[in-house]
Amino acid sequence: MINKLIAKIQKTKAPIVVGLDPMMKFVPEQIRRAAFEEFGETLEGAAEAIWQYNKGIVDAIYDLVPAVKPQIAMYEQFGVPGMIAFQKTVDYCKEKDLVVIGDVKRGDIGSTSEAYAVGHLGKVQVGSKMCGGFDEDFATVNPYLGSDGVRPFLKVCKEEHKGIFVLVKTSNPSSGELQDRLVRAAKGSTAGEDAGDKPLYEIVGSQVAAWGAECMPESGDYSYVGAVVGATYPEQGRILRKIMPRTFILVPGYGVQGGKGADLVYFFNEDGLGAIINSSRGIIAAYQQEKYARFGEAGYAEAAREAVLEMKRDIACALESRG
Amino acid sequence: MINKLIAKIQKTKAPIVVGLDPMMKFVPEQIRRAAFEEFGETLEGAAEAIWQYNKGIVDAIYDLVPAVKPQIAMYEQFGVPGMIAFQKTVDYCKEKDLVVIGDVKRGDIGSTSEAYAVGHLGKVQVGSKMCGGFDEDFATVNPYLGSDGVRPFLKVCKEEHKGIFVLVKTSNPSSGELQDRLVRAAKGSTAGEDAGDKPLYEIVGSQVAAWGAECMPESGDYSYVGAVVGATYPEQGRILRKIMPRTFILVPGYGVQGGKGADLVYFFNEDGLGAIINSSRGIIAAYQQEKYARFGEAGYAEAAREAVLEMKRDIACALESRG
Repeated sequence: MINKLIAKIQKTKAPIVVGLDPMMKFVPEQIRRAAFEEFGETLEGAAEAIWQYNKGIVDAIYDLVPAVKPQIAMYEQFGVPGMIAFQKTVDYCKEKDLVVIGDVKRGDIGSTSEAYAVGHLGKVQVGSKMCGGFDEDFATVNPYLGSDGVRPFLKVCKEEHKGIFVLVKTSNPSSGELQDRLVRAAKGSTAGEDAGDKPLYEIVGSQVAAWGAECMPESGDYSYVGAVVGATYPEQGRILRKIMPRTFILVPGYGVQGGKGADLVYFFNEDGLGAIINSSRGIIAAYQQEKYARFGEAGYAEAAREAVLEMKRDIACALESRG
Repeated sequence: MINKLIAKIQKTKAPIVVGLDPMMKFVPEQIRRAAFEEFGETLEGAAEAIWQYNKGIVDAIYDLVPAVKPQIAMYEQFGVPGMIAFQKTVDYCKEKDLVVIGDVKRGDIGSTSEAYAVGHLGKVQVGSKMCGGFDEDFATVNPYLGSDGVRPFLKVCKEEHKGIFVLVKTSNPSSGELQDRLVRAAKGSTAGEDAGDKPLYEIVGSQVAAWGAECMPESGDYSYVGAVVGATYPEQGRILRKIMPRTFILVPGYGVQGGKGADLVYFFNEDGLGAIINSSRGIIAAYQQEKYARFGEAGYAEAAREAVLEMKRDIACALESRG
């Protein structure tokens, strides 16, 4: 799947993933009204509204980008009907041949992580049959529980030719509270008292690189074990790029969160690959920005398309002008 | 809700939570067969089987324990039908007046964590209405993203009188890979070169205590911000108990994972409170142990009841003999 993602990035010339994180306040009035008329102001009504909204976006952008990243929390908040909308969105995007990165940030221990892995990336045994659950192409994984929590995902990825992106350095303001903590070098290291101390994200980055070395596809330069590193931390991105040379980096935080095109160059390798940049509300709610106001609510999908095209130019320009 | 949990622990004399983590291999043949006859070997069939299995367990134990902890991964693996079984299980346990701890280990940034918080503990705005999603009483939360990821849960807990348990030191063998890393004291501290260095779990524990201090119920000694610390690490439990004196500790890892009654005393305060011990397969699949084999498959629920009673005696005995 990592090779499919890379091939699609090369074909579309867009190292871009569109975050399908529908919030009710993004959904145009007419879509909300139609959904509420059919299902009432209920979880079912909300789920119908976000599904119709997503469908409009996907129809408008699927030929421009390689991948989408639905954020499951935005669906899970609407309970079971929300999860049905998530499933519909995943299925529809796969029909459109988009690579689907489930932004689920799961992670648990042993058999529990295995259950998440089969539920999101694999198949689960039911009697004599194997059944697919949500069946995304990639999932994001939280590393706090250590390799017990990650290895079940690696196993399923290997069997199913899927992939993961492990959280390393997240884009949010408080990500440093734990991730930037300076960790002492292991005892018995030959280094002096300060030498060898590293921030926690570098340790996680090294682990991701090690897992990745075990998880290379039969051909190609990149592992199917990727990393998440926020666009809002370009300096850390530069360091992590070196620590994890064969790791694909999923980069959130572009646009609304403050990351700029020029900050992104550090996340790419010299082959022009190695990173895929996410934008969510900057694209799906573009029509609410002054810049795209001319599209109006009814033109929200066309505004999203225009925002993708502009993001593509911004990134291409930044990559061309790097030294 | 923390006060309700404490009152129920005192009433049942059982600081015990039963983990409802149904795996298909635990479900008795007759329940599986009936479900597959009705729904086929499908996700719906699997979901029906685990729901009926859960119902039997809950009916057999609800008067003995204060709380249950469904592990959502075990439901999520069966896709949407699994999530329906999760919802049914939560609703049924609440009908039986059990406190429901959703073991969801969610955690994301800002508005995304807020979506998880409202989906699992609060209500979500749909048009002019507020709708409840999964609506557990407590949820487990992963702290890797920092306080941005936790604060939205605190807000919802305050509004809804709910609670969370933050992962601090998990029960699994590899939990130390990140959680035990020795973190350097902040620069500018007056401590010497080694003094003040702490393992990461202590730093997280201190954060939990600080969040907890902001989140005390109107009366009572314990915060509604709890912590998860594995029974398999009693020495760390002893330290964390001191760092977080007003924090309720959810303790997984008893029984099958290796934690023993005698290890548990360190997790309790001198008031005999402050901890609640989880057992999952040791109870729900007790009938598969030689010790309870006399109950047979058909008696799986009675075996679970017997296992709860024995666990209760083991913990009471350990608490009495400490000192």
